[in-house]
Amino acid sequence: MEESAFIAALRDLATHPAARGLGDDAAVLEVGGETLVLTHDTLVQSVHVRTDEDPADIAWKLVAVNLSDLAAKGAVPLGLLVSHALGAGDERFVEGLREVLAAHDAPLLGGDTVGGMAKRAWGCTAIGRASHAPVPDRRGARPGDAIHVTGELGRAMLGMEERGSGSANDLAYRRPTPLLAEGQALAPHVSAMMDVSDGLLLDCWRMAEASGTCFELDSRSFPVAEPARKDACVRWGDDYQLLFTAPEGASLPVLATRIGVVRPKEAALLVIDGETIQNSDGLGYSHRA
Amino acid sequence: MEESAFIAALRDLATHPAARGLGDDAAVLEVGGETLVLTHDTLVQSVHVRTDEDPADIAWKLVAVNLSDLAAKGAVPLGLLVSHALGAGDERFVEGLREVLAAHDAPLLGGDTVGGMAKRAWGCTAIGRASHAPVPDRRGARPGDAIHVTGELGRAMLGMEERGSGSANDLAYRRPTPLLAEGQALAPHVSAMMDVSDGLLLDCWRMAEASGTCFELDSRSFPVAEPARKDACVRWGDDYQLLFTAPEGASLPVLATRIGVVRPKEAALLVIDGETIQNSDGLGYSHRA
Repeated sequence: MEESAFIAALRDLATHPAARGLGDDAAVLEVGGETLVLTHDTLVQSVHVRTDEDPADIAWKLVAVNLSDLAAKGAVPLGLLVSHALGAGDERFVEGLREVLAAHDAPLLGGDTVGGMAKRAWGCTAIGRASHAPVPDRRGARPGDAIHVTGELGRAMLGMEERGSGSANDLAYRRPTPLLAEGQALAPHVSAMMDVSDGLLLDCWRMAEASGTCFELDSRSFPVAEPARKDACVRWGDDYQLLFTAPEGASLPVLATRIGVVRPKEAALLVIDGETIQNSDGLGYSHRA
Repeated sequence: MEESAFIAALRDLATHPAARGLGDDAAVLEVGGETLVLTHDTLVQSVHVRTDEDPADIAWKLVAVNLSDLAAKGAVPLGLLVSHALGAGDERFVEGLREVLAAHDAPLLGGDTVGGMAKRAWGCTAIGRASHAPVPDRRGARPGDAIHVTGELGRAMLGMEERGSGSANDLAYRRPTPLLAEGQALAPHVSAMMDVSDGLLLDCWRMAEASGTCFELDSRSFPVAEPARKDACVRWGDDYQLLFTAPEGASLPVLATRIGVVRPKEAALLVIDGETIQNSDGLGYSHRA
């Protein structure tokens, strides 16, 4: 079954209002006067992580991508559950876990271990407490809003090429930083927010689609790490910057680049430099085969 | 790394009081005046589920084993996150998921899908609300308490042999029932509780160890589905009955069989019919290779 068909089938099962988590967004759950945010991601060897990856980097990325999902909700981490496939380099995995937990003050709450996997996989669930209601999601972009993205795109791409060098790009690839403080600061100001995990253009497409709008982008404004390879920088994933929309002219507490404007949905979901993008093929990294 | 060594290394990382979830127990987290219970389990093809298993049964078991962990905490399910490895029979997986969610009134909140797995794996996180404080765990057995187990052991073992027959045992194997109502009813009465996932004897060993006590069992009292194969019935996993301790003579709201008594810890963790068990090898199913 195609991933999109599978998600569509799940949506039919999920009538609970918290079930926005299907697909990519985190789940939002009201419990005892608190708003909780739950997210789950799995990394598979040779799909999401290279087979020669340092297990410490795998542990870091596993936790960071989940914390990044919390960041996009403006949530404060409460803790993590980690599912670990036992195998070579487990000591390094524990070391990476120690580092990422300390770096983001996120306690490890539990999890399980599994053995016997031909191709190893790791799962993580993060739980957080929303800092602002309503909790931002990818569905709230409104015509007239400005579209923004934090940071520079393409750092993870360059970092993969410079892997092991210890450069800033190498760290951006191996040790991505979930933008927790930025997400919490932005939450009261945005109409929609998500993290850029699969490439800026693909994630713009997805936010436009979820919001029932058209995103009109100006490629000259794209903040990229290597201008000569701008096209690649905005199609590569793993940057974990925050993509968000906010009313035009709004005063924002976080440095970000305005890359376009939200338009009413007509035929297209995405227009770049006046050119209509017909479908999402080639816009980014689609790892859900 | 051995699973036990890995868990020990994780314990060093997990200083948060909710981190009792490391190893097998669920995590317990106080948020906004509520006590939340979080559990995560992964099923791996040909390790935890047969390669020829109906994906509908895999979905059922995936959710049921997590709900069973909530049951042992006396928790009311709030929702589930499911991580699904795409592949053959996805329609059946969705169908099984539909059935298990409906049977236990547990909403699907979110999750993710992964592709490209040589050997498929599925993960599930369940979140629940504790119905009673303190939340029972495996560490609370006290000398003098009676040891009880619900139901009959060995049904899943017989069910695997009768697989596909549609018999009660077949259903016990393919479609285990998490004892949610029983766990909630028992929570105020027990000193320790866990679900029997890896065999009665092994789980008695684990509860005795976690509680710092010795469990003295009388094998004549073991409630088994096939008396002629009692030894196998109490070593086989997948029954998802509740094992608990309670003060001797306590009035219990759920039918259960008294199988022994808790003693102070001396040399042994487990004594059966007066015979000391020296180590946990062969006591049950240890799937965490």
